[in-house]
Amino acid sequence: MKKIYNDVNQMVDEMIDGITTAHSAFLKRLPNTTVITRSDVRVQGKVGIVSGGGSGHEPAHAGYVGEGMLDAAVVGEVFTSPTPDQVLEALKAVDSGAGVLLILKNYTGDVMNFEMAKEMAEMEGIKVEQVVVNDDVAVQDSTFTTGRRGIAGTVFVHKIAGALAETGASLEEVKSIAEKTINNVRSMGVALSSCTVPAAGKPSFVLEDNEMEIGIGIHGEPGIKRVPIENADQITTTLLEKILADIDYSNSNVAVMINGLGSTPEMELYLVSRKVSQLLEEKEITIYRTWVGEYMTSLDMAGFSITVLKLDDQLKEMLNKPSKTIAFSN
Amino acid sequence: MKKIYNDVNQMVDEMIDGITTAHSAFLKRLPNTTVITRSDVRVQGKVGIVSGGGSGHEPAHAGYVGEGMLDAAVVGEVFTSPTPDQVLEALKAVDSGAGVLLILKNYTGDVMNFEMAKEMAEMEGIKVEQVVVNDDVAVQDSTFTTGRRGIAGTVFVHKIAGALAETGASLEEVKSIAEKTINNVRSMGVALSSCTVPAAGKPSFVLEDNEMEIGIGIHGEPGIKRVPIENADQITTTLLEKILADIDYSNSNVAVMINGLGSTPEMELYLVSRKVSQLLEEKEITIYRTWVGEYMTSLDMAGFSITVLKLDDQLKEMLNKPSKTIAFSN
Repeated sequence: MKKIYNDVNQMVDEMIDGITTAHSAFLKRLPNTTVITRSDVRVQGKVGIVSGGGSGHEPAHAGYVGEGMLDAAVVGEVFTSPTPDQVLEALKAVDSGAGVLLILKNYTGDVMNFEMAKEMAEMEGIKVEQVVVNDDVAVQDSTFTTGRRGIAGTVFVHKIAGALAETGASLEEVKSIAEKTINNVRSMGVALSSCTVPAAGKPSFVLEDNEMEIGIGIHGEPGIKRVPIENADQITTTLLEKILADIDYSNSNVAVMINGLGSTPEMELYLVSRKVSQLLEEKEITIYRTWVGEYMTSLDMAGFSITVLKLDDQLKEMLNKPSKTIAFSN
Repeated sequence: MKKIYNDVNQMVDEMIDGITTAHSAFLKRLPNTTVITRSDVRVQGKVGIVSGGGSGHEPAHAGYVGEGMLDAAVVGEVFTSPTPDQVLEALKAVDSGAGVLLILKNYTGDVMNFEMAKEMAEMEGIKVEQVVVNDDVAVQDSTFTTGRRGIAGTVFVHKIAGALAETGASLEEVKSIAEKTINNVRSMGVALSSCTVPAAGKPSFVLEDNEMEIGIGIHGEPGIKRVPIENADQITTTLLEKILADIDYSNSNVAVMINGLGSTPEMELYLVSRKVSQLLEEKEITIYRTWVGEYMTSLDMAGFSITVLKLDDQLKEMLNKPSKTIAFSN
């Protein structure tokens, strides 16, 4: 296994220290936890926003902690949900009395642990609401999921809910805009190679030299099919058509995210972005803004996902609000 | 070759279209060229700043075009210098009469072509000054270079020169701060795997399963030595010691960049960042700010580089000025 590490069992802990040391101007680690918060955590009167999940998806989720987005990210082991007690620490740290919104991706482990933490926090008198992102149109159920998986669309939920919370909106209002975003966002991915989980020491699965997997999950869960690699325009068309068939995007304005899964060069991502622009123009769907880069990765997997978010005026306004984070700055 | 592309000979052209379409709010392509400029190119009275080089290093250099950094990036084929006529187009496009600073990395092809373009522009009455970044302490001469190579430290030169130019400083002043930055910045890298140039279709070189190359260049040029892979702390110590031995950093404040070469997960980069922080603290060198991510890549190469920039008050001020680009936003 070719990875840069010291002790495979300390990687996540050392990563958290690395992140909070490098960005100590606006991030800090809650002592003796795997929780990363804004350094000005517990902004008075503001609804807190907490997300998290297994690590290995960096910059998600610590990269979205900061003014205008998340108040805290709870970090699990690689591809493993954080435990309820860690989530509880985050909820307690960020609550200023206005309540906390938990944003999670739909994976069975996350749902179970975050819900348990929510109940524990409520017993301590903290108001908590929860939304579950399930933007991946590839498959209905999957290895670790009942219902659709949550993938890169989660970043838009962070951004939009975070922006509204920053204005002083109520917990109900922040939950409501997060739900609207979830209703309006769809994604789908493809892999050209597997990732290697450090503790496993070998690739999670094997794709032949000429093979790709359409609809792969961000933990390497099976997608729709394994087929010979097609060209950039063909792959992009396949993914985008499935996304656009899922909800009615006609005549709408959209935000687009082309997300690299870990080892795909930006050059290739921009070929995908180019084709997405062409296809949406043909369909008279207007791109309002586009993001291209690594936002929700799967360690060193080669491949990408496409996310399309249908916008209204309120969502546009929130997308454009300032945010000061490692990975999503406006 | 597992890459996402349509026609290997059109990849760079399609990438440029992809970039300028995705970010049309602040970038545009000069028609019939490989030049990407700010959409408000030729800001009156402002010194223009142009950089560029072969592609395959994305987000360099188009990712640094925008308010507060570059006015234009000239894009060559993969790992190949852009031709003088393309550089000339960029110089003509950005000059508002205040002159233009060319920032290039020290590679023989770039130096030759950019100097030729400079002469051609001067014949057309444009004032042009040039600085050559040579921050890589690994080797003295290399495959494509006489003298030291220019690598990730170039991004700090873009940022600092761009910030000063935005204040209305003269060409001489902007050149002077770029030279100060070059004098104060040192970098070094390591590779765990080769990249694959699309037109070649196979890895540029082969590293054994347990091997890394210390001091590699961003085109895969040979470094200092191939050795068995060490742990993150050991590799980091090796690179940082060579950097710190090169100029006197004692008692100084520094900016640090941990730069991924293409397929190294952020988790691993933050392990490097963590160790750099510890080592600098031991040596009583104060980290002013840290950047961790992909800033100057080598397609899909696994590995990273460390950059350390010695700061004074003027450099700090310029680092903190606003910039609005794809890859370096303040």
